[in-house]
Amino acid sequence: MDHQWFKQQTEEIGLALAKQGIRLVVPMKESFHRESDLIQPSGASQLASHIDHTLLKPTASLSQIQQLCNEAKASEFAAVCVNPCQVTRVKRFLKNSKVKICTVIGFPLGANSTLSKVMETRDAVANGADEIDMVINIGSLLEKDYASVYSDIKAVREGAPNQVLKVILETGYLTKEQIVRGCILTKMAGADYVKTSTGFGPGGATIEDIALMREVVGPNFGVKASGGIRDSTTALAMIKAGATRLGTSSSMQIVEGLRGETEY
Amino acid sequence: MDHQWFKQQTEEIGLALAKQGIRLVVPMKESFHRESDLIQPSGASQLASHIDHTLLKPTASLSQIQQLCNEAKASEFAAVCVNPCQVTRVKRFLKNSKVKICTVIGFPLGANSTLSKVMETRDAVANGADEIDMVINIGSLLEKDYASVYSDIKAVREGAPNQVLKVILETGYLTKEQIVRGCILTKMAGADYVKTSTGFGPGGATIEDIALMREVVGPNFGVKASGGIRDSTTALAMIKAGATRLGTSSSMQIVEGLRGETEY
Repeated sequence: MDHQWFKQQTEEIGLALAKQGIRLVVPMKESFHRESDLIQPSGASQLASHIDHTLLKPTASLSQIQQLCNEAKASEFAAVCVNPCQVTRVKRFLKNSKVKICTVIGFPLGANSTLSKVMETRDAVANGADEIDMVINIGSLLEKDYASVYSDIKAVREGAPNQVLKVILETGYLTKEQIVRGCILTKMAGADYVKTSTGFGPGGATIEDIALMREVVGPNFGVKASGGIRDSTTALAMIKAGATRLGTSSSMQIVEGLRGETEY
Repeated sequence: MDHQWFKQQTEEIGLALAKQGIRLVVPMKESFHRESDLIQPSGASQLASHIDHTLLKPTASLSQIQQLCNEAKASEFAAVCVNPCQVTRVKRFLKNSKVKICTVIGFPLGANSTLSKVMETRDAVANGADEIDMVINIGSLLEKDYASVYSDIKAVREGAPNQVLKVILETGYLTKEQIVRGCILTKMAGADYVKTSTGFGPGGATIEDIALMREVVGPNFGVKASGGIRDSTTALAMIKAGATRLGTSSSMQIVEGLRGETEY
């Protein structure tokens, strides 16, 4: 990524926001590191602590959700990631464990009103969610309506001030430039992570996109790879490219695959 | 459909609700007609009045939404159906027209909390929505947690007391029995329409499912066919099977196809 080009992207977005009366000091200096000090996990348990154990199918049953939670506790995954209607029961299943509760907001289309995303977030937080994975307003990003994209994220950020906030770009719909701009806006609005995909859209995480996203957000920001991560080779490649969190429903295969490789 | 079997379905659901303290007089007498007096539209303009002109892609641009509204006005479609973040601008584009504004709630997974669905509904109504297409809690229906399914619909009904309420079952996930039960619950909870599909799930409307849904809900209730309706032949077949509304993004092709057939 060319430094000048990146600077220009940032400035253009800053200008678009300023035109809408949104002025902010952009802490972008740190955002152009080529190297990062990210931990490179090698063992299964180290990798597990970077995984959001995920079940977002609308058909998910009580017993599947319970199993998800039990697996997450046993393997010490970072979090379970479930739909909002499951948060209350997950809170019960994960009682007295370190596993975080992650849920999804405006999912998977992101085409809700900002107020609705905020209310859904407030409700999820009240029900016990520790982490919020929201979908960006994809249409607004494509329309270059950066003020709307920014305000949408910012409002959810304020709705979950003490939770980890991840912003899903749905990269499968985006050009490289749009991914860069999505990352800049995510960081400007004060989120904690940028995330690739919902798993319900076109395509999932790619090594190339993860590397680009890491480059844009710098070393001190979260990058979550999600969509299509089904084995330990892919999982490790995503981490190597810059991901600090992985969202996958194949978590058990991934850690078991890694355990097989490292122990024998 | 066997009358005894249907009665049993209704009674089982009534019992499940009663166990949760939900008691209601079920107006099911009218629900077992084999014949209906539904209007069978023949001309393009008659058919148009049964179509929800639909654009639910998360990438929809301002100009596409404007075009959708212009087409709906020109062809006199029943409604435009858009994502919640588009309702405000659609309200502007449709000013002084008879075309209704339809939006989608808990879309497309339906796996949101009930409170969140209600808040999204309230917001959509406040923004000008005339019709609300909500997705049922599919997981709860599969788990036979009928009290939850009922309460979820009932709460949205109360959140949009003066709007048309359609309940999307996402039939592609359901057995025939589950479709029947979804229809019964939809009717019990006071909605206006039962609807087949989101267009984002597995499969769309089928003639068989529409006929079944019509049989369950009786003649004085709405049935909306959606998902995969792309030509006038399919559209008319759905109406003939019992649909009173069609949701499609191929509305222009459908009415033009029909115009071609009937005028020459």
